[in-house]
Amino acid sequence: MKALERLIERISRQVNVHLRSLNFDVGPYLEKIVPLKQFTKFYGFYGITAHHPIHFHFSNSSLAGTYLLGQCKVDNAILYKSDIRGDELKAKGDCLKCGNVDIPVDQDEVIRITDSYLIKTLIHNYSHDPVDPENFNIRSTVAMPYANIHGSPVEGCFLGSFATADLTTFQKCVLGEYAYVQVGELTHTEVPAGLIWVRAQDFFEFRYQHDPGILAAYISMPPGGRPGGRFIDFEEGLQDAFQPCFDQVCLIHDVKVSRWSSTSPYAMVKGSSMIGENVLVCQRAYLENARLGRGANAQEHCSIINSELAGYNVTAHGGFIINCKMDENIFVGFNAYLHGLQDAPLRVGKGCIVMPHTIIDLAEPVAIPPDTLVWGHITRQKDVAENSIALKKLSAVTSEIRVGGMIFKGSGSGFVKAFKHRINHILEANGAYFDGKKGRGHAQKGQNIAFNIIQPYPMGPMKGIYPTMDINP
Amino acid sequence: MKALERLIERISRQVNVHLRSLNFDVGPYLEKIVPLKQFTKFYGFYGITAHHPIHFHFSNSSLAGTYLLGQCKVDNAILYKSDIRGDELKAKGDCLKCGNVDIPVDQDEVIRITDSYLIKTLIHNYSHDPVDPENFNIRSTVAMPYANIHGSPVEGCFLGSFATADLTTFQKCVLGEYAYVQVGELTHTEVPAGLIWVRAQDFFEFRYQHDPGILAAYISMPPGGRPGGRFIDFEEGLQDAFQPCFDQVCLIHDVKVSRWSSTSPYAMVKGSSMIGENVLVCQRAYLENARLGRGANAQEHCSIINSELAGYNVTAHGGFIINCKMDENIFVGFNAYLHGLQDAPLRVGKGCIVMPHTIIDLAEPVAIPPDTLVWGHITRQKDVAENSIALKKLSAVTSEIRVGGMIFKGSGSGFVKAFKHRINHILEANGAYFDGKKGRGHAQKGQNIAFNIIQPYPMGPMKGIYPTMDINP
Repeated sequence: MKALERLIERISRQVNVHLRSLNFDVGPYLEKIVPLKQFTKFYGFYGITAHHPIHFHFSNSSLAGTYLLGQCKVDNAILYKSDIRGDELKAKGDCLKCGNVDIPVDQDEVIRITDSYLIKTLIHNYSHDPVDPENFNIRSTVAMPYANIHGSPVEGCFLGSFATADLTTFQKCVLGEYAYVQVGELTHTEVPAGLIWVRAQDFFEFRYQHDPGILAAYISMPPGGRPGGRFIDFEEGLQDAFQPCFDQVCLIHDVKVSRWSSTSPYAMVKGSSMIGENVLVCQRAYLENARLGRGANAQEHCSIINSELAGYNVTAHGGFIINCKMDENIFVGFNAYLHGLQDAPLRVGKGCIVMPHTIIDLAEPVAIPPDTLVWGHITRQKDVAENSIALKKLSAVTSEIRVGGMIFKGSGSGFVKAFKHRINHILEANGAYFDGKKGRGHAQKGQNIAFNIIQPYPMGPMKGIYPTMDINP
Repeated sequence: MKALERLIERISRQVNVHLRSLNFDVGPYLEKIVPLKQFTKFYGFYGITAHHPIHFHFSNSSLAGTYLLGQCKVDNAILYKSDIRGDELKAKGDCLKCGNVDIPVDQDEVIRITDSYLIKTLIHNYSHDPVDPENFNIRSTVAMPYANIHGSPVEGCFLGSFATADLTTFQKCVLGEYAYVQVGELTHTEVPAGLIWVRAQDFFEFRYQHDPGILAAYISMPPGGRPGGRFIDFEEGLQDAFQPCFDQVCLIHDVKVSRWSSTSPYAMVKGSSMIGENVLVCQRAYLENARLGRGANAQEHCSIINSELAGYNVTAHGGFIINCKMDENIFVGFNAYLHGLQDAPLRVGKGCIVMPHTIIDLAEPVAIPPDTLVWGHITRQKDVAENSIALKKLSAVTSEIRVGGMIFKGSGSGFVKAFKHRINHILEANGAYFDGKKGRGHAQKGQNIAFNIIQPYPMGPMKGIYPTMDINP
């Protein structure tokens, strides 16, 4: 285990050097978060398809339980049960827009993970940083369980549990637990736990701060300690459920999957579930008595239980949908937590946008009207007014509006348009609109992925470290 | 499937160019031997241990169902359900004896498989060719199902079904089905089916030719056709039995395995079987109601059914032991077929050496006395006299002896000593003598192997071909 211990020390040192101006020490967080024996217990795996260029490189790294798809280089890094999805990386010949400048992409983009320790973290999409369009860099960064790194190169960062870095370049930042940040660029900043922050330069800005007292019951992370709270309890309760996916080389689900849909062998489907047409169910998604209508998707690490999604629903990475009746065309953002009552499901009307990191945890029956933007913390019907706004009303805002704890500044129509555009892009990329000929997306392409299983040295001084691997077409 | 078809054509052409002086065409043998769809049906796998240098390289190759252990480079080759075991390769610093000359090994030896198509073939041990001590070359060679390439570099060769190339350098040779050749060096030679031929320069020579008419019932291979006969029927009957090994990531056997023994997760153990101390059961060994005493081993592709092995028994690659009661210290050579009666097992006395490619297929109860060398074809007790010789009697031979169809020339004591030495080395290497501290061998080391699972492109023009992989420490 010597090499693995040395690696953890190396990463800790590298990240701390970056974060010295914030006086932040990642060491205590890493010390006991994953017992060393876990690193030989779970295998890593990477996908081989005819759709993405196959380039993987791993050196001096541990990849226990990690899934890799698409071009990726990992050096001196620990990926523990993470999902690294490079199936939307930029391809040679693409062009990245930066204001009025077109930046041509001269090589296929590569995810490069170096000197980092990521735990149950999702990396997806492509780097939105125009500075280095051919590399999606994750460098000297520690991410605690259930963080998302989405389109965001990060360097010298610490992401708390259930934090999301979205479409932003981060340097030397600390994101508190359950913080969601999508602001383009951020350096030398400590983002408090539970801050939901979206900013598009001077165009618009959305801010909401979760009440720390309420948040702590869902997700807490004492300085240098292990994350806890209901989210963690929930995830830990599901852990054994996924064991069959790892025992079998390719688990066959006991559910009818429609012709143009795909359900990952590393997802778990239980109870009376239904997978409609053009549906994508990603690895580590958990479905139990879940009905997914045409074009719906269940992204990595989401849980959909005793719920119905009418169609064209996006359930982003890490979303929870429990006891819910969701109409068509609803977007549920990263790590949102929707928990209805067993005998009175949460009802969400069509066209709603549930902001990332929203907590709806019912104490009484609640319905959200159609075409509404929802955020914050809702337990009763009366909370809806203070934690939502009709999209139409928001579109009319031109300078500022405050609703409950939320502050919005700038162009409301710009914000709504940008969001709708993004949702549509997600549905398109996932193959929701496939007509049998055109519009092929992940739901269709995901049907033909072969998984290669990789393991570390089982014993000796290199125990837990994976051999050096170079996989090319 | 385009790339795979092109690869088969390439190999066929390359081998034929070598064999043009023998006027031998491998093409028809390859045409339909493995249906193309099989190449995406089975995964390949390689072992990672702390005991062997980990270097694997695969390019433009198909590895369906193949197991690889130890340093190995595969280019432009098709390995179909083969076992490539490089755990006895020479290490840097070793010395190879060639007469009175010591040849130092300056680099870890590598198995290099190029332009070859091997089907259910075993490659094991190390190259005994002093000309190139750091490379074990398998080049431009076709091997039909259940051939063994043991310590034998081969170039431009065709090995028939169940043929064994043992400790010999072969160039531009054809080995007929069930031929066994151990003669040091052989070029431009067509070896007839069923010839058992051992020669150590001018020191000794052993020859036995199976009756072609009798042999055909067990193994036949019409020119350009598919192999058939009882051996093939038997193996095909077992194929489904191994499916659980491939469905599970790491099959746990329902049998007690002693502390210092190992049973590969890719072996199959059924019925009331017993694995004693210091026992090695290799991948694709099939045990059913088999009792393996202390220090016994069951090598790749062997089958031991309704049989008892008292201890320190060697069952070489591809051996069949069915309805047998085997005393201690018995050696059963490559592809030997021992089939007793259900209610009157074949009894083999202690210290016996059953020559490779021996067929004992009982029509009545038979017992082989202890310390006997056995060969040929035995069905009744009276056949034993014509197909065996007491080791003591053989040791006394100094010029020539003929027994039944067997001709032995040279030093009988030299032959017996060399054989005993080799058996002892096999037991030692397999850890049969491990005392808890000293004498660690494959039985003990095999307990800690991690298996990485590799798959080919699942679709598209590269379907069936594996990505290029370089695996290093």
